[in-house]
Amino acid sequence: MNKGGKVMKLGLCTGTYSDLPLDEVCRLAVLYGYETLEIETFERDNLHLDIHTIFDGDNIRKFKKKIQDYGLEISTLGNHPESQLVMGPFGQDTDDIYHGTKEEKIKFGTEAVIRAAQAANEMEIPVVVGFTGCENFGRVCQWPDARAWEREEEIFAQRWGKILDKYDEYGVKFAHEPHPNQMVYDIETAQRSVELLGQHKAWGFNFDPANMMMYGIDVEAFIDLLGDRIYGVHAKDAQIVKQNAGRSGLNPHGNYRRIDRGFRFRIPGWGNVNWQDVITELSMVGYFGPLTFEHEDITMSRQDGMKKTAEFLKPLLIDAPFEGRSDLNFRF
Amino acid sequence: MNKGGKVMKLGLCTGTYSDLPLDEVCRLAVLYGYETLEIETFERDNLHLDIHTIFDGDNIRKFKKKIQDYGLEISTLGNHPESQLVMGPFGQDTDDIYHGTKEEKIKFGTEAVIRAAQAANEMEIPVVVGFTGCENFGRVCQWPDARAWEREEEIFAQRWGKILDKYDEYGVKFAHEPHPNQMVYDIETAQRSVELLGQHKAWGFNFDPANMMMYGIDVEAFIDLLGDRIYGVHAKDAQIVKQNAGRSGLNPHGNYRRIDRGFRFRIPGWGNVNWQDVITELSMVGYFGPLTFEHEDITMSRQDGMKKTAEFLKPLLIDAPFEGRSDLNFRF
Amino acid sequence: MNKGGKVMKLGLCTGTYSDLPLDEVCRLAVLYGYETLEIETFERDNLHLDIHTIFDGDNIRKFKKKIQDYGLEISTLGNHPESQLVMGPFGQDTDDIYHGTKEEKIKFGTEAVIRAAQAANEMEIPVVVGFTGCENFGRVCQWPDARAWEREEEIFAQRWGKILDKYDEYGVKFAHEPHPNQMVYDIETAQRSVELLGQHKAWGFNFDPANMMMYGIDVEAFIDLLGDRIYGVHAKDAQIVKQNAGRSGLNPHGNYRRIDRGFRFRIPGWGNVNWQDVITELSMVGYFGPLTFEHEDITMSRQDGMKKTAEFLKPLLIDAPFEGRSDLNFRF
Amino acid sequence: MNKGGKVMKLGLCTGTYSDLPLDEVCRLAVLYGYETLEIETFERDNLHLDIHTIFDGDNIRKFKKKIQDYGLEISTLGNHPESQLVMGPFGQDTDDIYHGTKEEKIKFGTEAVIRAAQAANEMEIPVVVGFTGCENFGRVCQWPDARAWEREEEIFAQRWGKILDKYDEYGVKFAHEPHPNQMVYDIETAQRSVELLGQHKAWGFNFDPANMMMYGIDVEAFIDLLGDRIYGVHAKDAQIVKQNAGRSGLNPHGNYRRIDRGFRFRIPGWGNVNWQDVITELSMVGYFGPLTFEHEDITMSRQDGMKKTAEFLKPLLIDAPFEGRSDLNFRF
Amino acid sequence: MNKGGKVMKLGLCTGTYSDLPLDEVCRLAVLYGYETLEIETFERDNLHLDIHTIFDGDNIRKFKKKIQDYGLEISTLGNHPESQLVMGPFGQDTDDIYHGTKEEKIKFGTEAVIRAAQAANEMEIPVVVGFTGCENFGRVCQWPDARAWEREEEIFAQRWGKILDKYDEYGVKFAHEPHPNQMVYDIETAQRSVELLGQHKAWGFNFDPANMMMYGIDVEAFIDLLGDRIYGVHAKDAQIVKQNAGRSGLNPHGNYRRIDRGFRFRIPGWGNVNWQDVITELSMVGYFGPLTFEHEDITMSRQDGMKKTAEFLKPLLIDAPFEGRSDLNFRF
Amino acid sequence: MNKGGKVMKLGLCTGTYSDLPLDEVCRLAVLYGYETLEIETFERDNLHLDIHTIFDGDNIRKFKKKIQDYGLEISTLGNHPESQLVMGPFGQDTDDIYHGTKEEKIKFGTEAVIRAAQAANEMEIPVVVGFTGCENFGRVCQWPDARAWEREEEIFAQRWGKILDKYDEYGVKFAHEPHPNQMVYDIETAQRSVELLGQHKAWGFNFDPANMMMYGIDVEAFIDLLGDRIYGVHAKDAQIVKQNAGRSGLNPHGNYRRIDRGFRFRIPGWGNVNWQDVITELSMVGYFGPLTFEHEDITMSRQDGMKKTAEFLKPLLIDAPFEGRSDLNFRF
Repeated sequence: MNKGGKVMKLGLCTGTYSDLPLDEVCRLAVLYGYETLEIETFERDNLHLDIHTIFDGDNIRKFKKKIQDYGLEISTLGNHPESQLVMGPFGQDTDDIYHGTKEEKIKFGTEAVIRAAQAANEMEIPVVVGFTGCENFGRVCQWPDARAWEREEEIFAQRWGKILDKYDEYGVKFAHEPHPNQMVYDIETAQRSVELLGQHKAWGFNFDPANMMMYGIDVEAFIDLLGDRIYGVHAKDAQIVKQNAGRSGLNPHGNYRRIDRGFRFRIPGWGNVNWQDVITELSMVGYFGPLTFEHEDITMSRQDGMKKTAEFLKPLLIDAPFEGRSDLNFRF
Repeated sequence: MNKGGKVMKLGLCTGTYSDLPLDEVCRLAVLYGYETLEIETFERDNLHLDIHTIFDGDNIRKFKKKIQDYGLEISTLGNHPESQLVMGPFGQDTDDIYHGTKEEKIKFGTEAVIRAAQAANEMEIPVVVGFTGCENFGRVCQWPDARAWEREEEIFAQRWGKILDKYDEYGVKFAHEPHPNQMVYDIETAQRSVELLGQHKAWGFNFDPANMMMYGIDVEAFIDLLGDRIYGVHAKDAQIVKQNAGRSGLNPHGNYRRIDRGFRFRIPGWGNVNWQDVITELSMVGYFGPLTFEHEDITMSRQDGMKKTAEFLKPLLIDAPFEGRSDLNFRF
Repeated sequence: MNKGGKVMKLGLCTGTYSDLPLDEVCRLAVLYGYETLEIETFERDNLHLDIHTIFDGDNIRKFKKKIQDYGLEISTLGNHPESQLVMGPFGQDTDDIYHGTKEEKIKFGTEAVIRAAQAANEMEIPVVVGFTGCENFGRVCQWPDARAWEREEEIFAQRWGKILDKYDEYGVKFAHEPHPNQMVYDIETAQRSVELLGQHKAWGFNFDPANMMMYGIDVEAFIDLLGDRIYGVHAKDAQIVKQNAGRSGLNPHGNYRRIDRGFRFRIPGWGNVNWQDVITELSMVGYFGPLTFEHEDITMSRQDGMKKTAEFLKPLLIDAPFEGRSDLNFRF
Repeated sequence: MNKGGKVMKLGLCTGTYSDLPLDEVCRLAVLYGYETLEIETFERDNLHLDIHTIFDGDNIRKFKKKIQDYGLEISTLGNHPESQLVMGPFGQDTDDIYHGTKEEKIKFGTEAVIRAAQAANEMEIPVVVGFTGCENFGRVCQWPDARAWEREEEIFAQRWGKILDKYDEYGVKFAHEPHPNQMVYDIETAQRSVELLGQHKAWGFNFDPANMMMYGIDVEAFIDLLGDRIYGVHAKDAQIVKQNAGRSGLNPHGNYRRIDRGFRFRIPGWGNVNWQDVITELSMVGYFGPLTFEHEDITMSRQDGMKKTAEFLKPLLIDAPFEGRSDLNFRF
Repeated sequence: MNKGGKVMKLGLCTGTYSDLPLDEVCRLAVLYGYETLEIETFERDNLHLDIHTIFDGDNIRKFKKKIQDYGLEISTLGNHPESQLVMGPFGQDTDDIYHGTKEEKIKFGTEAVIRAAQAANEMEIPVVVGFTGCENFGRVCQWPDARAWEREEEIFAQRWGKILDKYDEYGVKFAHEPHPNQMVYDIETAQRSVELLGQHKAWGFNFDPANMMMYGIDVEAFIDLLGDRIYGVHAKDAQIVKQNAGRSGLNPHGNYRRIDRGFRFRIPGWGNVNWQDVITELSMVGYFGPLTFEHEDITMSRQDGMKKTAEFLKPLLIDAPFEGRSDLNFRF
Repeated sequence: MNKGGKVMKLGLCTGTYSDLPLDEVCRLAVLYGYETLEIETFERDNLHLDIHTIFDGDNIRKFKKKIQDYGLEISTLGNHPESQLVMGPFGQDTDDIYHGTKEEKIKFGTEAVIRAAQAANEMEIPVVVGFTGCENFGRVCQWPDARAWEREEEIFAQRWGKILDKYDEYGVKFAHEPHPNQMVYDIETAQRSVELLGQHKAWGFNFDPANMMMYGIDVEAFIDLLGDRIYGVHAKDAQIVKQNAGRSGLNPHGNYRRIDRGFRFRIPGWGNVNWQDVITELSMVGYFGPLTFEHEDITMSRQDGMKKTAEFLKPLLIDAPFEGRSDLNFRF
């Protein structure tokens, strides 16, 4: 009955399994029923893709073929760490990503983000996922400087505006993932960013509900309000740990693995995200693309996560939009 | 990817099916995917194990072999009814378990609990599950005698201290199941019991979340706070029946089968226990043992319960703890 | 272990798929595991059953055989549109169903409802599902006329009393489906209707929890209080769309397909109905009949709905009532 | 410190005490601290104002003087019953208000609403409060006619558009009070009405939170979204009676005085309206006018209501908007 | 406007201040606006009333006069401790109240309760407040003896039936206060007791919402369902201490003064009782008698409690029932 | 009855009214019933106290006398802006407080905080209230640098350790106010700070519940867990604006005055803080000092805030701890 091609798919962030050869990751993906991959393009310790040699010869064709031979598809490229450097923070906090002065980091980050667009263009991948960065995230608070965030917004518009122009040239979109320590971390800042960037066509979002849970955001409202700018979806969940939340709050500091945190990233289905509601609204705004799983769940092994997520999420993916009824009982 | 042996298992209380021969119970267990059994050791109407003849000849070896031949394993012995007699109540309330004076009941209960340890020792089973008993549970209330509970605590420490010394000799642990009409029924009394018993090594708990729901206990907090003393887990659920709870409260009197009770024991997945949260915390404290199903659900047949529980619970069991990630995106 | 025949079944409203030939609907029903059908008897655009020719020759026998050949069973006949005309509204609002004066509509509706009973009788189907109708549903509000609803109740008792007498003659029951724009739309009006109709044996309800969600009704209480009058169950869900509900309320006007409604009909498992609680109470009141799926979900295709509903609901159906335990641990 | 004149005031609907002479009502108002009055202008049984003689001689001057002599002020005129007739319902449901055919009722209602504007103009009162009416409120539901509400909207725009033109001529605004059985009963219909009436300057709302509670409306959102059209406020509360609401729902039929209704109108402070939040948002949108108390609370006497409301509400009225701070700690 | 005499009053349990002479208590009562007193009749350490000499000479007349001279009124006599002995518990738990065997305690308690009725009769006080007692409150739980509570019910009916016959002779009612360690502790047991005692006219309840909060009872439902048997009301509140309740549950053991209990008795307005809802329902069932304050709040001094309670509660007392409206806007 | 001196008091932050002469502030304080003052010691635009001349001559004596002549008392000195500089942020964000390099700011802040202690010592005021500062508050998040917060903790321990040693010398305590952009902003960081500072005697907290609400902290748990380190209390409330919170989250950026923020600071009684619970726990941990009001409420004038806060808060202050009861009914 349901003909036509719009279907939601189950995707996988390969970066999670960066200690395994890409072939092994593909085999696991196929085993558990994943259909699309997100590939990281950052330089350091990246066994899956070498951004510097990928453009050589027919490396790109070979890379794509390897994935296709597993019956898989690359949905997106990702580069969260290096895109962070466009806006910071600088200093020691990002030295692991790239060691340099503030200016060197901005330059490195900017080039890396643009290089990802180039790769996406050559690989015919429509979207690069990443972060905007943010020099001092404490500025969302009006104390001690009520104007500080506003000043950061101006810099953001300038730096990212230029990058996005390059994206336009490559015919690729940049999907920022709202998250703490970014200029865009909730619905209002997402709406604000669209405005600041003059409705730039290349600008959009990678919707990851877990990242917004720690600010109490209504993630379904994000979809309804920004649906036409959602270019990607991360299937990650977040658990408000009720027995801890009153003490550590929703924004706890310190190691993800300690037992007494009030907030934990989880695999889909094990946190407070209502995936049926999320998938419903994605369907209502016409998003029929991949939901890409990323394992940041410190309560279970990564392979268990891959298996449990597929078992949980795949039956929920909506096959096709409502085609209407016209019988006497219900005409819509 | 996940090597090593720590896995959660699905277990079954065989006592629930005491009207069936043990072989039939084992066949059903295998059919639905159960992996471990809890065997009752009480005397009366016990078709599955005869505590008085089990020590004869090579009965123990034969008994274990029968179970093993089904591919099953005995995880625990249980004796809730007779262990109740150690602390009471006495009089007519426990005459069905054993008819006698208070002193005779204490003696009988004490011996039965110790005999279970002996059996466990000979069968190489690490844990006996049971109850502490409690002479008058109304003493948790400060009226009419604010000191009465304290006095009962002293007797508890004395009587159970001696029993646990015997357990130590047998190398077996006693896992009390927090429940109404017991000296330990919530988190605070569990913590208090550890203190009263001088941190006795043989003392611990059989975690059954359903039993604590009727006091509004945060069962995940129980796991976090007493995780190192959890020697067993019962997979039983409890439903706060919202349309009735305002009238009967959470502690209703009378027959479990009447429709208007505000509190019902249920099979896992059909009550208010959040099993994902429970399993998450068990993983966080390192509990990787059996979750043993017990059917006290008056809304569906016992075989339906056995089937539905396995279908619900098995996909939730966590295969292995998080082994960490070390890529640039997430290093924990 | 569970012998005897009481089982819940999964049913299908065929009207939802009225653009497909009945054979195709049957094939899909079988494919996804549905076991019973509800067949519509209204005249207009009804491809599945022609109420005017069904009584001719051995059409009835042939019709039933066709269904049986698919291994399916007809559980109920339905006629929501025409039964509406018994009480209204009249005028243009119901001209699509039947064009005529108020009196002509009442006559037509009354005859159609009785004809459905005749068909049910000849087809040996115990129940006809439909609506009571209601001339002006605004009368539930005491403004501007505090007596208006009461006056409508008298007319209801008179008109439907006569129809139900006919049902009695045919040995068939009428199951009204509580819904807005009906004389019975919640628990209190259901109880009131039983009283108004003098406890008429032929009078009962088709329990559809979704329809009552928009009034904040406790649907499990409906089952507990009216369980002996529940002759049918519709498996339909309703979503309180939290991000919209504060603005459109639970009773929004206008097209079902707009994204900003606070209330949407959904397939089972995708709304706010707690199906485990519903099925539990159905079991407690002894309802072991079909749960008949109806797709009014504007977020996904009808075939996806059929598939997802079967996958969700079938594992929840309770096989048989609790047969009791008699071991020392639990005697109920 | 706070100079300038913007203050919220406590007002009284005199219609509630129509069995007392207006002088007695004024005395009570003064006794309890009320500052403004809303006077009804309908014809039938109206002891306080005779709409047919008020225009004679210097009756208007005398009427105003009488009120002023008590230190009171007329804030608004009201005419809920007769304005209802503009859109209906017709027939017996409104015969108590005016007996006539549909056409006669429309004519009578229309003239009465316009006459109220004339009176307001001559008395220099800026606002008339009333209802839009609605022929069949069941049309908010899409069954049985999905287009019916839309058709009613067209008639509404036409009839009320003409009335509002007259209001413009008189320099008076009409404040519709969202309520069941009206074309505007929630946020969405309020927004829709503004659009349907082409942003008519004379069109606005009398905000009565209680009336919207029965649809689950977020009344603070009403203020935020429609603040510039709020020309009046009724201080009336509504109680969701929790022990009943699951059975009667939020929209129960029948007499307001029965004990088992799930929804009751109450005096401010005794229901579910959060008056601090309401007053806060009124302050945020710059509404500094009267909050006019109306007693429809069937649990206590009208005089007790008048006293308790004043005691509750007066200390909550906000004296003046925030004038800012400029010290180093907080500069806003 | 409100004529006639039904008014709610503010009462005081004098027993709370038993370390002060009765005159001092009366002075404080008058100071803070209390209007009625509940006087304890138990023997031990009772400085306010000597049950053994009260019947001598004109002691009763003198006692009443002393109270009246303060402008106060005795609303009820109370005897919680000695009435407890009618059903137990026995043994050391009640030795503080009266030292003796079980039989001696029953006899003593029975006589004390009857003597209170005699005193009430002679003092023209309509109600004696107290407890039923309960031998082992753990019997509300079905384990270990599912029949134990039922057996206790039979003894209850017998013993209290006889006492109530005496009450009938004295023309006095006994108002049991639902509470833990009593045969009646919630709505269901209250309804059951009425049935067990054959609708005995002398049997009713002293409604103390705090005592039922620890079982999750809907206290407003108690009033609605048992309103005609409410002969007294205790104004006592209970706080579910949210930061503790998950660990100690709602039924914590041990000293009321420890900081980590999840349940504390409080003065009215400082706990989870919704006094407006309670007073509303009392008004709806026609209870217009005293609300008698009892201080068991371990967070503030007894005098502060007396003052704060009067300030909080007195403005909430409803002066008179709704006398109706008959204007065109609202006719009920 | 309540003798002895422990009483809670109502205090006022004078900084809020820095545009008024101190005498005028004192007059208003007295008018509304405030009893204690918190005086700011920062340099810039400080009309109330000049930190550089206060030590001259008998200025301190005169300053104190002026306050005492109004019947007021100085409870605390405050210096939030300058203490911020000890840890940052630096750069433009704090140039309004003091213009300089990072090192210059640290030096200036450190000296200012110590100077406040000196002033407190000379004025015999036991506590200085302020902030710790924090260089980049985004470090509470583990991305992009999971170790960054830990590094900041070390610097914190070092810098503040030295300052606190000085405080010890002056016999004054420093009460940090948990707040965003500080090293201590919730319960866990408060506990951590005590540990990092080696249980320094001079280290404690100024409990301001509003500041912690934006992280979802259980503020009553803060009191229970850190009660012995609470040296001051700010009476400030926070409103989670429900109609906005889902879109802006609890940590919105931008101007406090925009209507669509999901989080607003409010005066006590107008937000989500439960002041009865807060005051109860303060009583339980033995805090009987001032609750000092600070107006950061953008919905009403500062004078209205001063008036409403006093009216709301003063009746809630607990006069004295529970002195116990010893009658037969309640012995604690």
